Amino acid sequence: MIDLAGSVLAGDRLGLARLLTQVENDTPQGRMALDQLFPHTGKAYLVGVTGSPGTGKSSLVNQLALAFRHPAGDEPSKRVAIIAIDPTSPFSGGALLGDRVRMRDLSGDSGVFIRSMASRGALGGLARASSAAASVLDAAGFEIILIETVGAGQSEVDIARLAHTTIVVEAPGMGDEIQAIKAGILEIADILVVNKADHPGIENTERALKAMLEMGHPHRMGRQPEDLEGEFWLPPVLRSIAIRGEGVTEVVQAIWQHAEYLRRSGEWRLREYERMHKMLEILIQQTLMARWQTSVSAEQVDEVVAGLYERKVTPSEALSRLV
Amino acid sequence: MIDLAGSVLAGDRLGLARLLTQVENDTPQGRMALDQLFPHTGKAYLVGVTGSPGTGKSSLVNQLALAFRHPAGDEPSKRVAIIAIDPTSPFSGGALLGDRVRMRDLSGDSGVFIRSMASRGALGGLARASSAAASVLDAAGFEIILIETVGAGQSEVDIARLAHTTIVVEAPGMGDEIQAIKAGILEIADILVVNKADHPGIENTERALKAMLEMGHPHRMGRQPEDLEGEFWLPPVLRSIAIRGEGVTEVVQAIWQHAEYLRRSGEWRLREYERMHKMLEILIQQTLMARWQTSVSAEQVDEVVAGLYERKVTPSEALSRLV
Repeated sequence: MIDLAGSVLAGDRLGLARLLTQVENDTPQGRMALDQLFPHTGKAYLVGVTGSPGTGKSSLVNQLALAFRHPAGDEPSKRVAIIAIDPTSPFSGGALLGDRVRMRDLSGDSGVFIRSMASRGALGGLARASSAAASVLDAAGFEIILIETVGAGQSEVDIARLAHTTIVVEAPGMGDEIQAIKAGILEIADILVVNKADHPGIENTERALKAMLEMGHPHRMGRQPEDLEGEFWLPPVLRSIAIRGEGVTEVVQAIWQHAEYLRRSGEWRLREYERMHKMLEILIQQTLMARWQTSVSAEQVDEVVAGLYERKVTPSEALSRLV
Repeated sequence: MIDLAGSVLAGDRLGLARLLTQVENDTPQGRMALDQLFPHTGKAYLVGVTGSPGTGKSSLVNQLALAFRHPAGDEPSKRVAIIAIDPTSPFSGGALLGDRVRMRDLSGDSGVFIRSMASRGALGGLARASSAAASVLDAAGFEIILIETVGAGQSEVDIARLAHTTIVVEAPGMGDEIQAIKAGILEIADILVVNKADHPGIENTERALKAMLEMGHPHRMGRQPEDLEGEFWLPPVLRSIAIRGEGVTEVVQAIWQHAEYLRRSGEWRLREYERMHKMLEILIQQTLMARWQTSVSAEQVDEVVAGLYERKVTPSEALSRLV
């Protein structure tokens, strides 16, 4: 058996790609390597970037990666990984297409690693897979891990919660319906970016976002930090035109400010704890299900499912037969 | 204890609303009532409607509900329930707002029941809650249950899979990025609707969707049914302007055609089986986790999480300590 964990720690990109595949597919080898790498994790800064389709979020992620690689002034360059989570299916090539587009800007740079994940499958599968992939990239020495998710669904929110800092990207003129969705996603936003700031309606979108922030954080608005006990973070609303690279510096600044806030306030630790807790919960759930699966035969399950289908067996009877 | 199941079967709307709350919160009373109602389920036709924010999907759902209530010709009127799944948080009022907008068209009609679900929480929680809510509404005698979800995330796909028929709503001019997302969602689409058909770019959107369908179903395109062995369903691409009620009749026709196809081809049974299987899996997972939780103390879990945080305990060590 190849020592995937060892090759990842040694900086082997092919080994890294292979291990990510194992981890995504949740193979025994992948799990073993994850365990070996675990003591080497905990150094990376995880930044989630989420938003609806059409907001230009991928362009922004690319620009952020470039900015972390080539910082202004005498800031040291960071090693950057991108995990692009894409609910497309294998047949569509969506994930592959995304990779190809990215490659133009970031290819040939050994300090950048890009991974698209298109897996679906089991409940919570994507959250588990992306968390595990982030751990592998963390152990591999990537200092910034950008986790890009599409949409405002439950799984995206779950994934965003893996990150230390979550950026929500919006764009002008996405209709009224979006207002309701924004409100939910706003709860998880540490930084808001209105991309495509050259499009009409930018002022309206900005105003709507600020109004929603006010609804969500009524106790924070209109007060100065000194009025409040303890620390607080009011998500800034920034503008960008990612395809032209405009506004990216300000987003990077806000990211570093948020990182500093997290460390200063102790929230970094809280978020890490929550992440570990979630990871443990998923692991336990998987282990219990795997054990259960060895305790019943496929025929037994099929028989009970048939009973449910015919309404001859109730859910609680099904449970008492199988568990 | 109030007999919620009994009151639901007796047609009590307040009892129904109460039970849906119990079911959404997964209380013991809710679970018991679900079990009692289960033999009365299996009659409803579940139609999922999904699509990105801003496509006007809620308007289409309202119009579909109206059309099922007041069908053309001598078709009998159907009792219709709407489950609107909204990843917004309680504070936003997003779900409530949605209800209020709908009320204008559908209020006062006892053959319509509308429920917004904004729950998040546990992994798969939304899929479980919406499946359970659909069962309750099914037992309550609603013949058509429209399940509306936002976005293209994993949980939306999971929820769409609960339905017998899944409608994917698009709108013109949502940018290029959306193409990649559509591909994934196309896999689950039985019927495609391009809403806002009066907006510019309608032809492009239609063309893109048809091209993607061709990618997804290469063996089906350009052939006549008689060329193929067995039955097949090629998702139609329809146009609508939901806010003006245009194109809705055609969508309703396609829904009935799909229902007929499902019954004729045996796929109805397959989808029901799959739904029962999924429901059972979630129940078993919950039961196993609940049992496990009684076997460990919160202190034990905290200690292990702290060990993980400090990287003194590996994930597999954590598992062997707790399971």
